[in-house]
Amino acid sequence: MKRKIYLEMHTLEEAREKWRRAVGDRRTAVEQMPVHEALGRVLAEPVTAKVSVPHYHGAAMDGYAVKASETFGAAAVRPKQLTVGVQAFAVDTGDPMPPGTDAVIMIEHVHPVDARTIEIRSAAFPWQHVRKVGEDIVAGELLLPQQHRLRPTDLGALLASGVSTVSVYARPRVWIQPTGTELVPADKAAQAAPGQIVEFNGTVIAAMVQQEGGIATLHPGMGDDAATLRARMKEAAASDADVIVFNAGSSAGSEDYTASLVQDLGTLLVHGVTMMPGKPVLLGLVEGKPFIGLPGYPVSAVMAFEQFVRPLLAWLQGLAEPGWTMVDAVMGRKMPSKLGLEEFLRVIVGRVHHRLVAMPLQRGAGVITSLVRADGLVRIPQESEGINEGESVRVRLLRAEEDLDHTLIMIGSHDNTVDVLASELKKADPRLHLSSSNVGSLGGLLAVRRGQAHCAGAHLLDTETGDYNRSYVERYLHGTPVRLVQLVRRRQGLVLAPGNPKGIQSVEDLYRPDVRFVNRQAGSGTRILLDYELAKIGRTPEGILGYDWEEYTHMAVAVNVLSGSADCGMAIYAAAKALGLDFVPVCEERYDLVIPEACWEDPKIRRLLEVIASERFRRRVESLGGYDPAQSGTIVGLWDGAAWKETIG
Amino acid sequence: MKRKIYLEMHTLEEAREKWRRAVGDRRTAVEQMPVHEALGRVLAEPVTAKVSVPHYHGAAMDGYAVKASETFGAAAVRPKQLTVGVQAFAVDTGDPMPPGTDAVIMIEHVHPVDARTIEIRSAAFPWQHVRKVGEDIVAGELLLPQQHRLRPTDLGALLASGVSTVSVYARPRVWIQPTGTELVPADKAAQAAPGQIVEFNGTVIAAMVQQEGGIATLHPGMGDDAATLRARMKEAAASDADVIVFNAGSSAGSEDYTASLVQDLGTLLVHGVTMMPGKPVLLGLVEGKPFIGLPGYPVSAVMAFEQFVRPLLAWLQGLAEPGWTMVDAVMGRKMPSKLGLEEFLRVIVGRVHHRLVAMPLQRGAGVITSLVRADGLVRIPQESEGINEGESVRVRLLRAEEDLDHTLIMIGSHDNTVDVLASELKKADPRLHLSSSNVGSLGGLLAVRRGQAHCAGAHLLDTETGDYNRSYVERYLHGTPVRLVQLVRRRQGLVLAPGNPKGIQSVEDLYRPDVRFVNRQAGSGTRILLDYELAKIGRTPEGILGYDWEEYTHMAVAVNVLSGSADCGMAIYAAAKALGLDFVPVCEERYDLVIPEACWEDPKIRRLLEVIASERFRRRVESLGGYDPAQSGTIVGLWDGAAWKETIG
Repeated sequence: MKRKIYLEMHTLEEAREKWRRAVGDRRTAVEQMPVHEALGRVLAEPVTAKVSVPHYHGAAMDGYAVKASETFGAAAVRPKQLTVGVQAFAVDTGDPMPPGTDAVIMIEHVHPVDARTIEIRSAAFPWQHVRKVGEDIVAGELLLPQQHRLRPTDLGALLASGVSTVSVYARPRVWIQPTGTELVPADKAAQAAPGQIVEFNGTVIAAMVQQEGGIATLHPGMGDDAATLRARMKEAAASDADVIVFNAGSSAGSEDYTASLVQDLGTLLVHGVTMMPGKPVLLGLVEGKPFIGLPGYPVSAVMAFEQFVRPLLAWLQGLAEPGWTMVDAVMGRKMPSKLGLEEFLRVIVGRVHHRLVAMPLQRGAGVITSLVRADGLVRIPQESEGINEGESVRVRLLRAEEDLDHTLIMIGSHDNTVDVLASELKKADPRLHLSSSNVGSLGGLLAVRRGQAHCAGAHLLDTETGDYNRSYVERYLHGTPVRLVQLVRRRQGLVLAPGNPKGIQSVEDLYRPDVRFVNRQAGSGTRILLDYELAKIGRTPEGILGYDWEEYTHMAVAVNVLSGSADCGMAIYAAAKALGLDFVPVCEERYDLVIPEACWEDPKIRRLLEVIASERFRRRVESLGGYDPAQSGTIVGLWDGAAWKETIG
Repeated sequence: MKRKIYLEMHTLEEAREKWRRAVGDRRTAVEQMPVHEALGRVLAEPVTAKVSVPHYHGAAMDGYAVKASETFGAAAVRPKQLTVGVQAFAVDTGDPMPPGTDAVIMIEHVHPVDARTIEIRSAAFPWQHVRKVGEDIVAGELLLPQQHRLRPTDLGALLASGVSTVSVYARPRVWIQPTGTELVPADKAAQAAPGQIVEFNGTVIAAMVQQEGGIATLHPGMGDDAATLRARMKEAAASDADVIVFNAGSSAGSEDYTASLVQDLGTLLVHGVTMMPGKPVLLGLVEGKPFIGLPGYPVSAVMAFEQFVRPLLAWLQGLAEPGWTMVDAVMGRKMPSKLGLEEFLRVIVGRVHHRLVAMPLQRGAGVITSLVRADGLVRIPQESEGINEGESVRVRLLRAEEDLDHTLIMIGSHDNTVDVLASELKKADPRLHLSSSNVGSLGGLLAVRRGQAHCAGAHLLDTETGDYNRSYVERYLHGTPVRLVQLVRRRQGLVLAPGNPKGIQSVEDLYRPDVRFVNRQAGSGTRILLDYELAKIGRTPEGILGYDWEEYTHMAVAVNVLSGSADCGMAIYAAAKALGLDFVPVCEERYDLVIPEACWEDPKIRRLLEVIASERFRRRVESLGGYDPAQSGTIVGLWDGAAWKETIG
């Protein structure tokens, strides 16, 4: 069965070029603005100074204005006296020079003789300490070129030189139209039925428009049948909007009429771009007005906005497309990518051991938190099959470059206390930012070995000794000295639907044919723990329905139980509590931070340890439930790369 | 005579530390905001997701929802048929999964058999193409930490997870109070009498507050007697403002009561900081509220704002002080600086021959155009006596780092057509920015020799041959291949008061005792021209009143004639015309661009030459008056570093 297809996919470069040409020299209207309201606006024509600044010869110091030639010959050994009001005139900074004077002697260098006489002990040279007419700005000179974006000091220079209104390009007006019968307003999120989607893309798009200096009008969501869409497109084209953005209705799905309507009402330029996320973008002109159909998935919408709407808002004001802050980093994990698609990976970025490390986050175009959590974006060109671990990549930063030095990179197992840590760390020092990537305990140890993390979270049970993490450190961190710091002890157990309808009491029940289990991924501490518990009762995983179904976090496991997808999963108590689920404890385990010795003195790690040791942190962790923070912050192991040393105190 | 002195000068570092401590943990009020209005606001508390995203299992592709286990065994050689409406259900992306299904088969992989039957040729695995509950956000998880500044995507994540209002810190309110009886409103600039100063600092400060996320209220200027100041301070302290900024009244001049009033009404923390510009800054608390007295000179006000108000606006919202973009550059000119003062030099910055060059602009604290024209700031520490030419310096950028690659550095003689060039260049390509430093023709040649400029403007007369620039190139650019490109021919002459009241007809009249002359600086082409004209009539400079009075630009010379400071000066016709002055032509000269061979293929130089060759540029130059652009753009010399080569066609 064929689906409706994209007319002809364009590469990102082709699409951008086609868009650029179609938009051409189009500008927003030119408007007259009072200077004091024109911050950030772009001049539509060059500005010439109307008056000179200063507009009179003025004293540049507090002191006495004199005629320089009358002071010639004065010296320490041969002081000269001047008559006040005749030869010397008291002036403050900014006062006009009295007629006949051409120099100012600073008050500190003047010696009063009597009420009418002062004495000076050195000569003044002509125009000394005088601000002359036009020293700053000369009437008639070009002050600012056209297409210049006004900054605060520009406003000062304009006003000073007698320019109180300027011709600027109007801020581009953007009509934002969410479409789709499935949409519900954001304030109805709690009541949304299955199949209904909270309309939040419009707010994101409006905020991006605002950030780029445009004026967004976010219209209420509406149905997406052809007649309604057509009417609304015509209305938008007839309005004062400079740009029309529809969201979504740009994919090739069965309800998507946008493409044919654009073709009908104007020109369809591009439908489908070989970029990911962002592929189903649509570009055209509707009754001559730039029209963009943004994809429905939030990450796709943001990516397509950045590639097509952001430059447009600049062009419409005669500006060049603004650039991005780019840095070089080392890729922390291998990321294969599809040939023929330009992919934008979201990554966390931080400086570990003096080099920047980029660690990829979730890929899904629907995962808006991947953008929230990301520190940057890595572009994989369409002719590339991916990026290898350790490869150097160019990262477009999503935060200020300076922030990278204050970003603490934590890789490894996920625990809810890590979120508390992130929040408390920011409270303790607003510069600090904890970026975490959840790849399981073992993944964390490997990242530490490769020098890609400031610390790793791990709770790896040694099934022979019953101890945590130490044997894994011995096995995987040979040559890498680290310290183990206990973060918390926590309860792990079986997460069950409220009321435990299936009466599950222990891991033995997982073998029942009516019990659907949801597991954690291989290499995670929780998975190892489960296998250990199964071994204790002499069983193998075989026979557990859903043992192969892997989730990456405790919360994801709990959610599957909450939604009824699974009857049972293994997770920490806090996850069950957060979602109001039942919980059968299986054991208590230790969750440690593995901190490389090379990072031990890093101020970010210092601060982290302070936070962990604080009463406030412990109280917040306790309130999550299922945690014992009594020993939080204790050093439980000192590994010199080859052997364990005596633990401190 | 002693002036009132600063109580105790602080170093910048001391003052900042004292300010930080005095402000402490003070915050603006916490307010509840609808998420869609909260862009750029800072969270006052951590935010937890209220609902999961997605909140139901949904199709992630258009196709058919099935139960995966019923597809097992399907293969190309052994297709399987499913009954529509019983085993398979048509779904679009986003549709909820029908009960009992757990996988989606993409429409492309489905083969219709009849209206009620489809055929598949491969098995689906469980949860394939399904967006599961909580895949993005899990209810109860920490979404954003406190003290996080909200970005567009954050708003999306908040709305998606059922959070429609957030607790944020109020935007800091800043009371801006211009003071001084000399102030006139900006729209009265044209009527300002000597001694009156156009009030524009307030607008600059308000714009800076706005840029940093604050709300500025700019109050009308008012007198600066003690009673008025005191009453207004109390009013500001009792208002809803979080911060009080007075401007100026912070120096130690005779009308400056601010310091003693602050002491009286609260705490005077700092009065006078060893920074330049910005020394007379005043910091205190007035009835408990942060109070800043900013200096009156515009550059000083901006510098002090950046050091004290900018961080304050961040702290009040629980943010760290935002950083600056810093780059390394090579200093293009020696700049001595006073020991014991931390100086901030304004510089132009551009990339010449793959390294960044910083060239200082005018130093005066009153020269706001030095900030307008600056690309960056260089800090000279107080323990330094200055910076040598060629020394590496850290530059804080005032424009985006990417702009540096689009900045064309022109150093040398000043000509009004250079302003036209700057404006036309920006029109031709909004990315391009021409930064120029006026150091005279010879200074320009030396900058080219040191590899510090993309081009130099020069009009150096060879008094023996009557030709321009060539003999100077031979003398100063040995080993540096360059091309000479004619920019314009222009008329030089005597600039005179309107109506020529002193009847000056030729350079011979400069020797008259009633004629005050204003000269250009040594090394300037105009100065050489004057000396040449004097030599032609067999005279030396001796006996010309004002020969030693040096100005750096044609316009500055003309302004001195306009204001009556001088009766006569030598300058280009365009300067006289711009100010409505009389003009007696002395000669016509050639003004060339000296372009290093190494920059010849630079795209910025290519674009510059295109602009020079354009009809539009010529028309605008002609309209200035006194210019002949007929040969503009002609290559008039090809210097290979040792000899002149045949000129190209």
